[in-house]
Amino acid sequence: MVQQQRAAVTRAQIVRGAAEMFDRSGFEGASLVEILEAAGMTKGALYFHFRSKKDLARHIIAEQHRISISAVQAIAAQEASAIEQIVMLCHEMARQIVQDPIVRAGIRITLELSADDRGPAGPYLDWIAACQGLAARAVAEGDLVETIDPPTFARFVIGAFTGVQTVSQVLTHRVDLEQRVDEMWGFLLPGIMPTTRHSGMMRIRAARTDVPVTRTARP
Amino acid sequence: MVQQQRAAVTRAQIVRGAAEMFDRSGFEGASLVEILEAAGMTKGALYFHFRSKKDLARHIIAEQHRISISAVQAIAAQEASAIEQIVMLCHEMARQIVQDPIVRAGIRITLELSADDRGPAGPYLDWIAACQGLAARAVAEGDLVETIDPPTFARFVIGAFTGVQTVSQVLTHRVDLEQRVDEMWGFLLPGIMPTTRHSGMMRIRAARTDVPVTRTARP
Repeated sequence: MVQQQRAAVTRAQIVRGAAEMFDRSGFEGASLVEILEAAGMTKGALYFHFRSKKDLARHIIAEQHRISISAVQAIAAQEASAIEQIVMLCHEMARQIVQDPIVRAGIRITLELSADDRGPAGPYLDWIAACQGLAARAVAEGDLVETIDPPTFARFVIGAFTGVQTVSQVLTHRVDLEQRVDEMWGFLLPGIMPTTRHSGMMRIRAARTDVPVTRTARP
Repeated sequence: MVQQQRAAVTRAQIVRGAAEMFDRSGFEGASLVEILEAAGMTKGALYFHFRSKKDLARHIIAEQHRISISAVQAIAAQEASAIEQIVMLCHEMARQIVQDPIVRAGIRITLELSADDRGPAGPYLDWIAACQGLAARAVAEGDLVETIDPPTFARFVIGAFTGVQTVSQVLTHRVDLEQRVDEMWGFLLPGIMPTTRHSGMMRIRAARTDVPVTRTARP
């Protein structure tokens, strides 16, 4: 039992060390030797848990997926309209990127691998699916104009967020990310909400959640 | 003179071979040996023109910059309102990405290097600057609501475009990029244009340019 706990701790340490290195140097740039140094581990310990650097990368992307899904569930549990939950979703994605090295590493690896045929679509599809469900509800609730197609809108929102965070990273190391996401909704809301609902626009734009999301690699 | 021309051709061949490799395998993934094979060159020829792989990457990013600037100038020369030129700009960025391996390689290298401190902001700043000038004109022309801040709007448009193309790449290898950019303007225009101008919205959304842009690496 103690041994199982120790193995779980070791595993989590390796994942965190790998996330730090992938976040800093990218998938191709990060070497296994550096990952071992960052995690304070031996090669034997690493190979006991993971088959290869690619295997580690896959695990980090899966872990990011798990974090995303818990955030989506936490937001769905909020007492808020669907359009508010979409705004919350974008700010929660921003918060995770700024605060969680596993999420940052997952995004960097995903972006790097996205540029060629090996690109994992999973992380995008998670957020698009969550946003699509909320968009359909927001149309039904009358907060999105009824001509909006939820899948098309969801793909655009996740795309726009993805690029807003990329540009924020390049220009300010994501220091201004929360403000940029807020501005994105400032440009979008007037065009996607029926004018009869515009009186609630500032409240919707200000929607945030601070529901805690599990962030440890393993229990 | 003949020798100079031959050197220019060799140089352009190396740049194109490198662009193909960077586009396919990324900066870290592309090896000099593969670049030489793709270009059909010897190591000596490469080192006569470029100091290192990094030097080649810098050259491709500079070349992408040159291509961007000529597109911006070609669009500025069009007989079109500023808001139409902003729409044209986004579609021209999309066209370049789909058609030009040097632009694709430049974007991939930029994205990869953006994820850490070495990230070159240049390509983003080019487009943001162009878009900002047009946005200021569009406000003056009454096609953008007067509360819009041109620098903030320009940064958002280039950010949103960047992510829309990333998601299009991951989900469809950019086959749907033109349609996705058109949808982006479908969501944006109703909220950023004064309602008194909404009658011209479909014409603005349909604005395109087919001005040819120089695409060869060197004269």
